[in-house]
Amino acid sequence: MLHPGQVPLRSHGRSPDGGKGLARDTRVRWALEEVGQPHVVRHVSFGAMKEAGHLALHPFGKIPTYEEGDLVLFETGAIVLHLAELHTGLLPKDPDARARAITWMFAALNTVEPPIFELANARLLEGDKPWSKERLPLVMDRVRKPLHQLSARLGDADWLDGEFSAGDLLMVNVLRRPAATDVVKEFPNLVAYIERGEARPAFRRAYDAQHEVFARAQVPA
Amino acid sequence: MLHPGQVPLRSHGRSPDGGKGLARDTRVRWALEEVGQPHVVRHVSFGAMKEAGHLALHPFGKIPTYEEGDLVLFETGAIVLHLAELHTGLLPKDPDARARAITWMFAALNTVEPPIFELANARLLEGDKPWSKERLPLVMDRVRKPLHQLSARLGDADWLDGEFSAGDLLMVNVLRRPAATDVVKEFPNLVAYIERGEARPAFRRAYDAQHEVFARAQVPA
Repeated sequence: MLHPGQVPLRSHGRSPDGGKGLARDTRVRWALEEVGQPHVVRHVSFGAMKEAGHLALHPFGKIPTYEEGDLVLFETGAIVLHLAELHTGLLPKDPDARARAITWMFAALNTVEPPIFELANARLLEGDKPWSKERLPLVMDRVRKPLHQLSARLGDADWLDGEFSAGDLLMVNVLRRPAATDVVKEFPNLVAYIERGEARPAFRRAYDAQHEVFARAQVPA
Repeated sequence: MLHPGQVPLRSHGRSPDGGKGLARDTRVRWALEEVGQPHVVRHVSFGAMKEAGHLALHPFGKIPTYEEGDLVLFETGAIVLHLAELHTGLLPKDPDARARAITWMFAALNTVEPPIFELANARLLEGDKPWSKERLPLVMDRVRKPLHQLSARLGDADWLDGEFSAGDLLMVNVLRRPAATDVVKEFPNLVAYIERGEARPAFRRAYDAQHEVFARAQVPA
């Protein structure tokens, strides 16, 4: 049963990250908290994610999905942009500044995240392969290059372009991916940037809510 | 010198793809043609892309960049979305249909392209490594999975959600990446989908313009 104005978000019941706020739904939960959109999280098991019912919502069988009346959205970038357009607080009103903030959203997801995704695959899916040790430094270099450029652009600013925006929200989330940690910590201003994101009250609320769900779902091993 | 309403797009003078329309600027050129936005292409050499002047426009030292008055955008997804918002023809007017089309833009760039990017790296940057032959099938499987799901969702429809949209434009472009060709051709409906995109007059105009630039730049080897 939904309360008025409340939207359902489907996500893992028991995230593989142990409630650390590292799964992709954290991006959307954080955005929901930033804009104050009431929501309820409905849990989807890993098995159910591959079934027809969930594939109708999310053709790639992943989480999260977002529902609002008849509208069903998947892709965290699209959900965050939708929320940013519906409410104030995640995109500047000035049209040029708004377009630049959206550019940072795409930069997070299409420039910075793909090599991190590749590094995560190298660690999680190929860590036991004979080539793993020799190959890992090559893949880390592919992550290092855009992070070096991102660090240079950020400089000593708080956020990527003026006020905090949906671009920062996605970028901080992408940089928090565990595979990237070792490379990120080579850039102190990116570490401080992530900490600024994590210190936002909306991030704390989203993180705490997610952690609580995990704690409740805990069963003895 | 710009004509009224004309915007500059900075791109490769001599694309490594030999003018086949495979570099990322094709996405933007195609979108510019779909919406009828006058533009002029300014060429950037590979050397100049890493210099301060270009890094001020594009912090990651890539192409394309898009300029409109004082506004400078990079990231093909952001530029295509900006053009789609400025003009008619790339996003539906109905708000729900519009949000779904934007979802497909992000799906192209954050779900379908990252494994293709990884496969391109496996071929171009690691083709001579001792692990290349054994590893390539693993990486192709990572591309195959989302393409299988995309093929299932597309079915026998012409486009991903109703009329042709910016989501289709980006998806067709991502699927045209050469690294993906062998996997894409396992899915006849995706092959036909790409062909439908390539048959659009705006795609032809963008492709021909790009090819002509390459032909002019040709010098004897």
